[in-house]
Amino acid sequence: MFRKMVVAGVGLIGGSLALDMRRRKLVKQVVGYGRTEENLKVAKKARLIDSYFLREAEIPTDTDFLMLGTPVQTIVPLTEAFLPRLQPGCIVSDVGSVKAEIVRGMEKILPPDIHFVGAHPIAGSEQWGAQAARADLYVNKRCILTPTRRTDPAALKKMELLWRRVGAKVQTMDAVQHDKVLGIVSHLPHVVAYALVNALDQTKIDGIDLKTYCAGGFKDITRIAGSRPELWRDICLSNRKAVSQSLGNYIRNLEKLKRAIDGGRGAVLEKVFARAQTVRESIG
Amino acid sequence: MFRKMVVAGVGLIGGSLALDMRRRKLVKQVVGYGRTEENLKVAKKARLIDSYFLREAEIPTDTDFLMLGTPVQTIVPLTEAFLPRLQPGCIVSDVGSVKAEIVRGMEKILPPDIHFVGAHPIAGSEQWGAQAARADLYVNKRCILTPTRRTDPAALKKMELLWRRVGAKVQTMDAVQHDKVLGIVSHLPHVVAYALVNALDQTKIDGIDLKTYCAGGFKDITRIAGSRPELWRDICLSNRKAVSQSLGNYIRNLEKLKRAIDGGRGAVLEKVFARAQTVRESIG
Repeated sequence: MFRKMVVAGVGLIGGSLALDMRRRKLVKQVVGYGRTEENLKVAKKARLIDSYFLREAEIPTDTDFLMLGTPVQTIVPLTEAFLPRLQPGCIVSDVGSVKAEIVRGMEKILPPDIHFVGAHPIAGSEQWGAQAARADLYVNKRCILTPTRRTDPAALKKMELLWRRVGAKVQTMDAVQHDKVLGIVSHLPHVVAYALVNALDQTKIDGIDLKTYCAGGFKDITRIAGSRPELWRDICLSNRKAVSQSLGNYIRNLEKLKRAIDGGRGAVLEKVFARAQTVRESIG
Repeated sequence: MFRKMVVAGVGLIGGSLALDMRRRKLVKQVVGYGRTEENLKVAKKARLIDSYFLREAEIPTDTDFLMLGTPVQTIVPLTEAFLPRLQPGCIVSDVGSVKAEIVRGMEKILPPDIHFVGAHPIAGSEQWGAQAARADLYVNKRCILTPTRRTDPAALKKMELLWRRVGAKVQTMDAVQHDKVLGIVSHLPHVVAYALVNALDQTKIDGIDLKTYCAGGFKDITRIAGSRPELWRDICLSNRKAVSQSLGNYIRNLEKLKRAIDGGRGAVLEKVFARAQTVRESIG
């Protein structure tokens, strides 16, 4: 499918895609780019990439597929830095968890003969870096593509095919809609988890080490607070409106529960908990 | 250790204890009590109990160990209903997730020759009922006993020994202190999870079924929202002060994050997320 792919940000998402594409012979050569050589050395050793470069100006001019897997706020500026050396026909895509801001930014900077297709494979976890990459990460995972009226149809088709070939269930969605959906199902939960760990951290009870009392429930609910801070800082900033709105609604739910607890209103608590339990069971 | 044990509430916690005690021959006969015969039939079939009764007045008069495993707000009233038939020397204990209210209530109603020891084995999960009971549930789990100055030393020793024999790491703690600790590490997270599922449930985006977009992160963070509503209603009511305080502090953390998101203050977000990540990693 491609001769030379550049993966900028060879982490869990970009690295796993590179690995799958190599294994399935969807690409001849994979070149990594990143800020830290250490991670790229890990990636090369793990055979995710064939070679790497560390300065934007060193991107190979015969790159026919540029895949951006860096924190979302760096995706557009980094593409701008690569742009002078990209050749007509090159396909640019990304795996960012936020889409509208990136799609808008890309359409602003890219010339008509370099084709951008926004993508978001929903396969993240709290792990990161090249050492987290693994084969078949995308099998049976959703991959959402966010084309616009300006998206090149051939490039879109190629991206659909690529993600299907690595096992993903591909769908297209409006970028703004995507950001609203992910704002509630993914971005809000990360803020919730980080805040819960910090609430624990701030609580002092007679010098007791509260961490040693955290059992399975607490560990489950805060697992995603182990996620990389810079990634989630960027996601919150890029999807500011949707995350803020979800967070506001969530805070109102908590305030309602706090009032019910303070007022000893057991019937309200039971009703709210029972509804949540029913919904949670339907998620599986 | 005991001749005849009555387990009121033969669920995950009470049922597993009964099973372990039978297997280790720490009790000769186990009699179940509950509101629904269906669960007691399951318990009998699974050999958690030898027999059962459905009316409080039918509690055997030769019961030497009464273990209460029902929702926390029912523990004291239920003991009161059993009390007329309990004989001197009987040990009464419970496995409730809240302790201060229960300890106070028990010391108020029990005569000096019936000995109460409050206990909380930290081994719950979102599963419930007799079918959730299993052997060795308590191995390497904490079991917190909350004796007071009025607790009978021999009964306390016997309870310590019992929980050690089923594999638990036993410790004693002041009941109020226990409730503060569990308020933040366990009770708050459940409220957080229930509220998050409800926030999802309330969100409508262009008719999209948001549940189908919930990936591993959302599932992990909301797993405990599958817990039994009546149990958590009771826990929130019985530990009102500590849960409300933790919840208030948690809401303030979320509001701070919301302001940082609204204001686009990336440095604040990164600092807060990074702190949470470090703390979360230290929990394991």
